[in-house]
Amino acid sequence: MMELITGFSKKSKEEKIEWLVATHLDNNPDVIKTLHQYWNDDKELQKLHDGFIENTISNYYLPLAIAPNFLINNKPYTIPMVIEESSVVAAASYSAKFWLEKGGFTSEVISTIKNGQVHLNYYGNDSTIQSFFKEVKPKLFASISGIEANMKKRGGGLLDIILKNSTEDLEGYYQLHCTFETNDAMGANFINTCLETIAKTFEFEAENHSSFTENNLAPEVVISILSNYVPECLVKAQVQCPVEQLTAEGVDGKIFAEKFIRAIAIANTETRRAVTHNKGIMNGIDAVVIATGNDFRSIEAGVHAYASRNGHYKSLTNASIENGIFTYSIEIPMALGTVGGMTGLHPLAKLGLSILQNPSAKELMQIIAVAGLAQNFAALRALTTTGIQKGHMKMHLKNILTQLNATPSEIEKTILYFEEHTVSHSGVVNFVNELRK
Amino acid sequence: MMELITGFSKKSKEEKIEWLVATHLDNNPDVIKTLHQYWNDDKELQKLHDGFIENTISNYYLPLAIAPNFLINNKPYTIPMVIEESSVVAAASYSAKFWLEKGGFTSEVISTIKNGQVHLNYYGNDSTIQSFFKEVKPKLFASISGIEANMKKRGGGLLDIILKNSTEDLEGYYQLHCTFETNDAMGANFINTCLETIAKTFEFEAENHSSFTENNLAPEVVISILSNYVPECLVKAQVQCPVEQLTAEGVDGKIFAEKFIRAIAIANTETRRAVTHNKGIMNGIDAVVIATGNDFRSIEAGVHAYASRNGHYKSLTNASIENGIFTYSIEIPMALGTVGGMTGLHPLAKLGLSILQNPSAKELMQIIAVAGLAQNFAALRALTTTGIQKGHMKMHLKNILTQLNATPSEIEKTILYFEEHTVSHSGVVNFVNELRK
Repeated sequence: MMELITGFSKKSKEEKIEWLVATHLDNNPDVIKTLHQYWNDDKELQKLHDGFIENTISNYYLPLAIAPNFLINNKPYTIPMVIEESSVVAAASYSAKFWLEKGGFTSEVISTIKNGQVHLNYYGNDSTIQSFFKEVKPKLFASISGIEANMKKRGGGLLDIILKNSTEDLEGYYQLHCTFETNDAMGANFINTCLETIAKTFEFEAENHSSFTENNLAPEVVISILSNYVPECLVKAQVQCPVEQLTAEGVDGKIFAEKFIRAIAIANTETRRAVTHNKGIMNGIDAVVIATGNDFRSIEAGVHAYASRNGHYKSLTNASIENGIFTYSIEIPMALGTVGGMTGLHPLAKLGLSILQNPSAKELMQIIAVAGLAQNFAALRALTTTGIQKGHMKMHLKNILTQLNATPSEIEKTILYFEEHTVSHSGVVNFVNELRK
Repeated sequence: MMELITGFSKKSKEEKIEWLVATHLDNNPDVIKTLHQYWNDDKELQKLHDGFIENTISNYYLPLAIAPNFLINNKPYTIPMVIEESSVVAAASYSAKFWLEKGGFTSEVISTIKNGQVHLNYYGNDSTIQSFFKEVKPKLFASISGIEANMKKRGGGLLDIILKNSTEDLEGYYQLHCTFETNDAMGANFINTCLETIAKTFEFEAENHSSFTENNLAPEVVISILSNYVPECLVKAQVQCPVEQLTAEGVDGKIFAEKFIRAIAIANTETRRAVTHNKGIMNGIDAVVIATGNDFRSIEAGVHAYASRNGHYKSLTNASIENGIFTYSIEIPMALGTVGGMTGLHPLAKLGLSILQNPSAKELMQIIAVAGLAQNFAALRALTTTGIQKGHMKMHLKNILTQLNATPSEIEKTILYFEEHTVSHSGVVNFVNELRK
């Protein structure tokens, strides 16, 4: 039987590591060495990173890279990207350069409304809860006035509360649908604190209201939480040029544009393709989301649900040709912040925002939408012309050679050989082993 | 007008940083200091990390933490997690302990088939391409025999190729739907290399086949790529116990179980809730995916598309009570690897896998599904009882205090005060400022 360890979170970092290595890693001293090797020399800085979450034992490295040459709404940007996958930064840089010569990207925020719900059980008369809600609504607003004071000063706060009857979909299911403006903050903590307060006030008022009786029980709160589905917090990015300007690297512009549009039509038809199509977009988006200290899970969830909003999971990008002009765009929901959370705590998130000229949340939405569009452009360009493996495997080849501790001479010979041969992991291993015989 | 920088990727890391700081950061020397501060002292190790992707300038830290006390299929585990969000590791640890006392988690892999497509344009006669495909199919298999040799030795490889006529959905749209077994490798490079080779062979054979004429043009390849939608690569995790055993912390087991089931019913009804519900699950899943060197974007995309597979975006978890037994489970698609890619290159990904006793890909699927279920359990438990803000804001409070460089005495006073008051960013800032007057 397994032994339960209690009070683990209260142990020191060193004690946690000691326990881990004794319990799961045969007291291997190399493990301790590796974990220490990734600690920062600056003890204060390390303490900061240790404090972000619970039970930390070291720092996990993800590569921080930059993609230059982005022109967005006529402003030049170099975009910081944090991602472990090779080819993503190269693809972003390729697209940035390709479109810079054609006037760059445009991007606009369509709306910035965030939302959250207090989910209720209520099995009584509809008109009773509706008139109760009308009466109590000012009190719900009043109950959060302290919490939202600072947000209000900056022009944000709770916008509205609506009582929604969803009993047709689920028996006894009502909700208080609340909308918020949170300006440059992602606002998760603010929204959740507001919702929990509204829920408490609502429940308390209902319990003490004469409308609700033994025969018409008061509504009961099930859960109160923000939504990561934010279709009213929406950004659009776009590029445009005459079709003939798309001619490049021996590929005719018109043929390319038509194949490109066809590839998007296929993604709109076939879920298996759409998922990978959108995954590539998220390679670009998440890389900037992380580099600026935002939460990529919330954006992933909201974006993919948005892709399926019409009952069929589709491409997030669109392309068309009209009067000889190629137009290509992305529209995605995204709740993120440039103040609060990690953005002000993680020195490299702060630096990421500095590299982007300390954008407002709206500007960051625009930049990130562009990063997604750029990623998709480069992927579709490669896929519809040479295929993605050529570029990808070149990078992969380097990684395999690193893994094999190849010497400079081995690297040179291997790269030369695989210019003419298909790269595969086993192929490279075999080739290097032959060299070493 | 913005100046294009060319040949950027060929510059050294130092030159890239110099250019960045001169171009976007007013030559601020602090920026260079910060980037250097995050470099590793071990030059060889730093070189390894620099080589993972293009244009790297430093290492982005994400906290690496551990959650102990997991019992999965009767084996004890401590789960490594890489995530920037506070409360996630605490929640995982809470669930692990809660369920350890009730026999732990069970988990099973339902299937492991991966897939990819060669997407085709073909506007000719259906029977012509069908009979051509039948004839050419052995050649398609033969064309990748070299590439799949090693995979075959380990019991994997290309399983089948099917020609799908999707012209009802999109004019002229056919596909070669290919299925693969890739064992302990995620297999993206393997699958893409196979698909591009199959596509080339298919196109070449079609172009040189007498069936296709000027009046019945040969099929043309649009794109060839693996799918990140992997509903046939599926894992299920589960917990079970008598309802009365759920009684804890003053909450009655039966009432809790019913509220818990209701919360899932609400997520199945309301997309806005389902997205956040599943986002919480992905907090747990992605944290382990990253800690083991896997690609979280592919798993995010596949999982969320799976949540919307029936035309309505729903919860990934299910719960029920039957004969007094509470059963709670998750079923999710997931293509990942324990060999190849980052898993063998990143020392901390290797270490993450060691902590998990070097699992096979199937075992890792089971562990990660459990991490998702555990996360959802802790979130729903908190949401349906005390609300999530209490625990979350305690952690948030600490982060705000760090940001304010609070002294030990300030920290003590602030924590004491906020045990009785609602934590908000502005509330904490004001309180500390008052202390400092």
